[in-house]
Amino acid sequence: MERIPILKMGHFLLVTIQVDMYDRLALTLQDDLTNQILKTGARGVLIDISSLEVVDSFIGRMLGNMANMSRLLDAETVVVGMKPTVAITLVELGVSLKGVRTALNVEKGMELLQESLRSKAGEKGNERQEG
Amino acid sequence: MERIPILKMGHFLLVTIQVDMYDRLALTLQDDLTNQILKTGARGVLIDISSLEVVDSFIGRMLGNMANMSRLLDAETVVVGMKPTVAITLVELGVSLKGVRTALNVEKGMELLQESLRSKAGEKGNERQEG
Repeated sequence: MERIPILKMGHFLLVTIQVDMYDRLALTLQDDLTNQILKTGARGVLIDISSLEVVDSFIGRMLGNMANMSRLLDAETVVVGMKPTVAITLVELGVSLKGVRTALNVEKGMELLQESLRSKAGEKGNERQEG
Repeated sequence: MERIPILKMGHFLLVTIQVDMYDRLALTLQDDLTNQILKTGARGVLIDISSLEVVDSFIGRMLGNMANMSRLLDAETVVVGMKPTVAITLVELGVSLKGVRTALNVEKGMELLQESLRSKAGEKGNERQEG
């Protein structure tokens, strides 16, 4: 069966979506991703969609779902590599990708995740000091 | 036209092959990869084939070609994520992937590239000291 690979890079997972997502592939990806987060203890997920020329409301919703699931498992999601035409289409479709952070490319996305990881560690440190 | 995305991560480029390679897609990837190496000045290339269940002699040859092209442009190539069945098939096909380094996964491949980059930097340092 076709599967989208999930690559572990340090504390983060990288998913590169290259093929058109149909229902079962999307569901398999959601399963695989949540399992991988648990297995690896990953703190962030990068979803690269730079190969996608078209993103419909189904994929938009799926991206939102994956971000929410990851958040529940204490991993932040950043969607990277969105094409300008895709951004235009998503807005026109009324899909706002609420709660999904985006970055121009994988490098910038990884910086974002590292920053937010540091600031979380900082907060924890402060809580401990206060408590 | 379908394209395989090439992601820049620090000094390295990451190519995740998820779809079956046919002639034109392979040629496009070779073009894109060499262009990206020049454009970004990347020192290493990671080719992830963990999604491929089958690798025939065509893909084997293509992997070898890409590794050689990258080497000429001063970037080392590591093929990562090869499935055991793929390794068996390649040997049975008589494709030995000479000159192609391999690693179990992206993380290990990246460590390999970083090590070889450091040892190269060391050699240069020595040359300067001697000269």
